[in-house]
Amino acid sequence: MISFTHDVPLQRVVFASGALSRVAEEAQRLSFSRALVVATPGSGVRLGNKVVELLGVQAAGLHAQAALHVPKEVAAVGLEAARAKNADGLVAVGGGAEIGLAKTIARDTGLPILALPTTYSGSEATPIFGLTDGERKITGRDLKVLPRTIIYDPDLTLGLPAAVSAASGMNAIAHCVEAFWADGRTPVTIALASEAMRRFGKNLPAVVADGTDAPARAECLIGAWLAGTVLAAGTGLHHKLAHVLGGLGLPHAETHAIILPHVMRFNLGAAPEAKARLAEALGGGDPADGIAVMLQEFPIPQRLRDVGFDRDKTDFATGEIAAAKITSPRAASADDVRALLAAAY
Amino acid sequence: MISFTHDVPLQRVVFASGALSRVAEEAQRLSFSRALVVATPGSGVRLGNKVVELLGVQAAGLHAQAALHVPKEVAAVGLEAARAKNADGLVAVGGGAEIGLAKTIARDTGLPILALPTTYSGSEATPIFGLTDGERKITGRDLKVLPRTIIYDPDLTLGLPAAVSAASGMNAIAHCVEAFWADGRTPVTIALASEAMRRFGKNLPAVVADGTDAPARAECLIGAWLAGTVLAAGTGLHHKLAHVLGGLGLPHAETHAIILPHVMRFNLGAAPEAKARLAEALGGGDPADGIAVMLQEFPIPQRLRDVGFDRDKTDFATGEIAAAKITSPRAASADDVRALLAAAY
Repeated sequence: MISFTHDVPLQRVVFASGALSRVAEEAQRLSFSRALVVATPGSGVRLGNKVVELLGVQAAGLHAQAALHVPKEVAAVGLEAARAKNADGLVAVGGGAEIGLAKTIARDTGLPILALPTTYSGSEATPIFGLTDGERKITGRDLKVLPRTIIYDPDLTLGLPAAVSAASGMNAIAHCVEAFWADGRTPVTIALASEAMRRFGKNLPAVVADGTDAPARAECLIGAWLAGTVLAAGTGLHHKLAHVLGGLGLPHAETHAIILPHVMRFNLGAAPEAKARLAEALGGGDPADGIAVMLQEFPIPQRLRDVGFDRDKTDFATGEIAAAKITSPRAASADDVRALLAAAY
Repeated sequence: MISFTHDVPLQRVVFASGALSRVAEEAQRLSFSRALVVATPGSGVRLGNKVVELLGVQAAGLHAQAALHVPKEVAAVGLEAARAKNADGLVAVGGGAEIGLAKTIARDTGLPILALPTTYSGSEATPIFGLTDGERKITGRDLKVLPRTIIYDPDLTLGLPAAVSAASGMNAIAHCVEAFWADGRTPVTIALASEAMRRFGKNLPAVVADGTDAPARAECLIGAWLAGTVLAAGTGLHHKLAHVLGGLGLPHAETHAIILPHVMRFNLGAAPEAKARLAEALGGGDPADGIAVMLQEFPIPQRLRDVGFDRDKTDFATGEIAAAKITSPRAASADDVRALLAAAY
């Protein structure tokens, strides 16, 4: 018999073309008077400065020192900056790196976060944070780090390169696929995963083909949001595989994309309802084939050999994954994982 | 271009067969030490007493004086009881009447509510409250009245009579249909409305045929929850019609059920995406016909004449509804409403 617990955290989402201009109003709603704007160096500085300007007296300054995977040294510098500026709020502008840094600062200070996402990472919609200590990735979950407000302005995603759109979109799709058998799934997470798949299925190929397709960009950003919200319900074989391969130095989103059709083929036979829902969301046909065809048309690496997977590491990866004893929707043995890696190679 | 604001309020949902036994644990989580249990007189007393017993020292007593539509005198007595018992929380056990009374008490006191729903009213999932002053129904919206925790125990719905299940299920379905064009709709409310329709479409006929079908009961209760969550996004012609006819003394849920296929026929031509989604959720075919067929097989009134609609009131009702100037998904003129009422009669 079905049973579940669904905790809905407090979150406000403002979505509109041009919504960037409402950042001061939304910061005001959170009572920010000295907000630290978090961005990446280089490409993130311009947008970061724009946000500081829009915030006016509500801004305490720009901290453009975010970095991928949030190295712990970067987190320490960010925390120090928030304290030195006596910040009473954080405005994260960007993707997983920027929002991730704001989250580690929030975890230590309790400062509320306003997120302005510009990619499909979905990090803004989860209470999950992560940081890296050398080669080791530490992740955790704390409601304190969940952004209190998200401003989605699809205009900010118009310049996202095709390859980045494709890879991060496939990463988000992967979260949705696993949502159907995640331990923490609820009728809400299943509905939202279906909805995200439906929007990505129609619109991700469109934005990869033409990044300036504004309606399709809006739909993909909605898909990214919904995919982010379901991530907290848990993940499975796919995520574990991507995690282990990521530990071997393979690129995160691209690896997700490459292995997804293979993991879907492996799992969907054991998950008929998920398969039917995915087929429906993707407009019919076998969903694993549908995703494989979508991937083939994307300008991103197609095989593990293309992203530098060392076949000699197969036994190591297989052992790591088998040790996780994944059982949902079906048990994945060492032989299963070996076959899957060979197919993806 | 799509734009929306989606405010997710804080709410916890515990769903399981037998979850009633977790009421003390959930009350503890809300720090209740003197909870007032709100129920209806008569049939509600037994379950109310059971909850008081389960709460033990956390209970301040049973207030079994809820009544349909929350007359303002009933609200005043409830408020007095909460104050007299020095309650620090409210546990509402039942449907719209019981949860509605707890909401009016919460509005005045700020006391948190734990809801234990036993019907498909969905009131537990909305920040909307209502009370009646003589013939006049006053409704409002306040986040304070949204239950902080919902415990859904589908076992408590096994005894819901077929006619009540049918009418309140159709009422919930009506909320989902209007969710597709409600002003406040968001990708989340649309996804949840689709999900609720899918679950009701398969399972409402099953529970009307056999009230003890436990898996179908669970699915309908999930549908009721999801339908409740989308109600706050707004309603349209259907709800307005039901409201005006309700003011003329017609029964709430039954009237909703009777007019639904007619309103769907009127609106769906102007809402092709909603029509496609509803068709998908209901397993194909014309969704208005699908709902009409479902209604025909239910042991509830089928026509407005069966619930005492006075045709002489047609002009009055038509005028009231035309005055609301409903435009979404299409404008409803006085002639349109007249034709609709004639068809439903």
